Amino acid sequence: MSEEINLKFEAKIREICEKVLQKAAPDHVEREKTMVFSVRLVDALKNELLRDGLEADVQIEGSIAKDTWLAGEKDIDIFILLSPKKYGRDIFLKVLETAKRVSGGNYLESYAEHPYLEAYIDGFTVNFVPCFKVSNAKDAKSSVDRTPFHTSYVKSKLNDEIKGEIRLLKAFMHGIGVYGAEIKVGGFSGYLCELLTIYYSSFINVLKAASKWRVGEVIDIEGYYESPEEARKIFRDEPLVVVDPVDRGRNVASAVRTDRLSEFIMASRLFLKNPDIKFFYPEEPEAYPVEEVLQIIRSRGSALIFIKTRPIKAVPDVLWGQLFRSQRAIMKALKQSSFEVIRSDIWSDEKIGNIFLFELPTRFLPNIEKHIGPPIEKMIECERFLRKHLSSGEVLSGPRVEDNRLVVERRRRYVDAVTLLKERLKDGGRSLGVASLVSEAFLDSLEILVNDEIRDLYSIEKGFASFLTRYLIGRPRWLYLKCA
Amino acid sequence: MSEEINLKFEAKIREICEKVLQKAAPDHVEREKTMVFSVRLVDALKNELLRDGLEADVQIEGSIAKDTWLAGEKDIDIFILLSPKKYGRDIFLKVLETAKRVSGGNYLESYAEHPYLEAYIDGFTVNFVPCFKVSNAKDAKSSVDRTPFHTSYVKSKLNDEIKGEIRLLKAFMHGIGVYGAEIKVGGFSGYLCELLTIYYSSFINVLKAASKWRVGEVIDIEGYYESPEEARKIFRDEPLVVVDPVDRGRNVASAVRTDRLSEFIMASRLFLKNPDIKFFYPEEPEAYPVEEVLQIIRSRGSALIFIKTRPIKAVPDVLWGQLFRSQRAIMKALKQSSFEVIRSDIWSDEKIGNIFLFELPTRFLPNIEKHIGPPIEKMIECERFLRKHLSSGEVLSGPRVEDNRLVVERRRRYVDAVTLLKERLKDGGRSLGVASLVSEAFLDSLEILVNDEIRDLYSIEKGFASFLTRYLIGRPRWLYLKCA
Repeated sequence: MSEEINLKFEAKIREICEKVLQKAAPDHVEREKTMVFSVRLVDALKNELLRDGLEADVQIEGSIAKDTWLAGEKDIDIFILLSPKKYGRDIFLKVLETAKRVSGGNYLESYAEHPYLEAYIDGFTVNFVPCFKVSNAKDAKSSVDRTPFHTSYVKSKLNDEIKGEIRLLKAFMHGIGVYGAEIKVGGFSGYLCELLTIYYSSFINVLKAASKWRVGEVIDIEGYYESPEEARKIFRDEPLVVVDPVDRGRNVASAVRTDRLSEFIMASRLFLKNPDIKFFYPEEPEAYPVEEVLQIIRSRGSALIFIKTRPIKAVPDVLWGQLFRSQRAIMKALKQSSFEVIRSDIWSDEKIGNIFLFELPTRFLPNIEKHIGPPIEKMIECERFLRKHLSSGEVLSGPRVEDNRLVVERRRRYVDAVTLLKERLKDGGRSLGVASLVSEAFLDSLEILVNDEIRDLYSIEKGFASFLTRYLIGRPRWLYLKCA
Repeated sequence: MSEEINLKFEAKIREICEKVLQKAAPDHVEREKTMVFSVRLVDALKNELLRDGLEADVQIEGSIAKDTWLAGEKDIDIFILLSPKKYGRDIFLKVLETAKRVSGGNYLESYAEHPYLEAYIDGFTVNFVPCFKVSNAKDAKSSVDRTPFHTSYVKSKLNDEIKGEIRLLKAFMHGIGVYGAEIKVGGFSGYLCELLTIYYSSFINVLKAASKWRVGEVIDIEGYYESPEEARKIFRDEPLVVVDPVDRGRNVASAVRTDRLSEFIMASRLFLKNPDIKFFYPEEPEAYPVEEVLQIIRSRGSALIFIKTRPIKAVPDVLWGQLFRSQRAIMKALKQSSFEVIRSDIWSDEKIGNIFLFELPTRFLPNIEKHIGPPIEKMIECERFLRKHLSSGEVLSGPRVEDNRLVVERRRRYVDAVTLLKERLKDGGRSLGVASLVSEAFLDSLEILVNDEIRDLYSIEKGFASFLTRYLIGRPRWLYLKCA
């Protein structure tokens, strides 16, 4: 198959790649501005650290350090390397206090596995990351200690041509929505894109390989394992395994979720069969006019339930980790009460707040519910079941025997999914497993809207309107194309 | 447990059994009448067979022959034994023609595994059954050839006391609704009741044993197998195995369905804990007044769908075999279109017709339906799926990737269960698997009623009203008692 594609589309693909590269590689102005800004920031931080009597190396890491960033990407990673002999982990918070002074005051902090500061300065997003300076990647105490080794490894493999190929892959992944290891995306990190391009030697070869991947694929760049099976024993249940060249015990692709992997595989296949620049720069569908969206919702016949709460201040990974966890908890509560969920999505906006969307086949279930009891072999349980249900006012039919089990039909506890949600989220939903920050937000602010009750919000909030439009279309943007 | 019961309830149980036996054993008048009637019928048939030049033995079999019938049971089995050396199977139909002449014209015939005539004479139900006379039960070509051996075996074990015990067990099983091997019941045949009583030596000992039975129980009266496991290898998946003492390859309990077995086990336990004559003679609940029944239906919130058709003329085993088969076929069609069925039942009446009842949580499903496509590994199938759904007007959302599969949300084919049933049964439902006689009836006469549309029929038909009342209560009559 791949050979045939080569013959047919080689010229077309080359043409597309050239166009993309013109947009994806930062121009002289951006390059200059980014470097000047980064170096200044590093110097400023160094000075402040000195002033505070802290002994540390300050280094730029990430795609800026490697000159592989995508034009317009404004993420700068500044690492503060500290000696583990000299300092304990408590030094990290002190270092971050110093970083706050150079950040100009607009920042969020996180104290998860590794503490860091995410600051918003002059249109850049700057991550200040304290870590320990170790002499070998295997001595890393946390994933961030390993980052400088990643940078060196990649740098040792780079030349101008391969940088272009990396940018093509990043732009493609960005276009199809699978770029980024952050929790919100669950996709491919910059480092992973770099490794894949280096391993397969070109953008197009990555796509050719990916189009034949399966879930559970193993890529062992440095050949640390005898076979993929051996590697899979270590990295069980991971959708994609790319063994870290600087540490054979780490999977560089551990953040990649199955959905994103599958999307990348599908998009690779479709691009090779039907190359189009729209994979890189897809068109955003226009939001439906409000009357049309209400008509579409009506015609589905389902129940779109929106749970809205106030904004939550946290770095994106913490926020999205909590949003996803809360979404799963609410989904579980719905399912436990027999409400099926067709699909669910989350919209989060710094100003408007967070909205969980659950689409149910039906908001209301019948009053009657079948309840299956113990098998008749279990004498004690059967006696208890009969005692309970023979006198219960909740029983509508039975008890009786069905096959080898006792059963009853009884009154359902929650007939209305909205009542269920209101009641179970009243206290913030902690007992259901709603995450802490979301639960606190629910206590302050909780609104549940169903179907056309979303009209006002949809009319006012452009961002939400486009979210809901995308949800209803329910098709990745690269599938807007006529493919196959 | 059983010892304790003995002490506590022995006297009470003995008292109940005495009362039951007074009702369950036929009195002198019934005995006389039955014997005279049977003997006359046998003589008349013998004469007619002679006249037709047919050489045959005519014998009474079943509970009349063994003097173990329950007072009021008016079933007489007349067997016509023919020499397999002299005749082929075609003789059976000829013999039945002769039997028709002595039956007075009111009969139904069956040509299933073994042909027979079921005639209704002077309030008796008489089965005329032609069979081959073989010298050993193992030479039987059909189950009816084995019957005379059953009669001899049981007779060889009988005395007046054990006859009483057998009648107690039959009366108990009759009271709790598990007596009879006919397809409608799927319970315990008379022969099986006799064997169990002989094996355990008394009615109460059968109950004590049964209260500890499990589904899959093996009873090997003559000890033909080394162990229950060995026997189970031969009789796989049968809920109850009672090895036939006259043929180790046959299971006497093969007609017993799991429901009936479980009911017998449960009722045995409850009777021993709380002996009551109502197990033998349960009270029939009074049918709800029509307004009350409509109120009860409304309060369930479910959809009771009644499919009504004209009466079907066939012997009960053929009729009920076809009704059950058709019920399963319709249930399957509903489930395939995602309509869940909480419970289903059948009412059959010679004059009014047959009614299938399906209770669904909901008559209507939403327009939208999630449709799960191939996993992304399957390249060809994925291409086909995309081609089909990217241009389909039936798709409401998608296609998109979920986990490792392509999915769409599409327009549901059947939103209304009644529309589905009307459309699929229009042609009699043969393609769904509706059985032939039922399918023919559907072609002539098919009415589908939902919930309160049943009002008129319920008001007019007492038998149906009591069926629906029992359905809604959904509790076996022996559980009306306060137990446990």
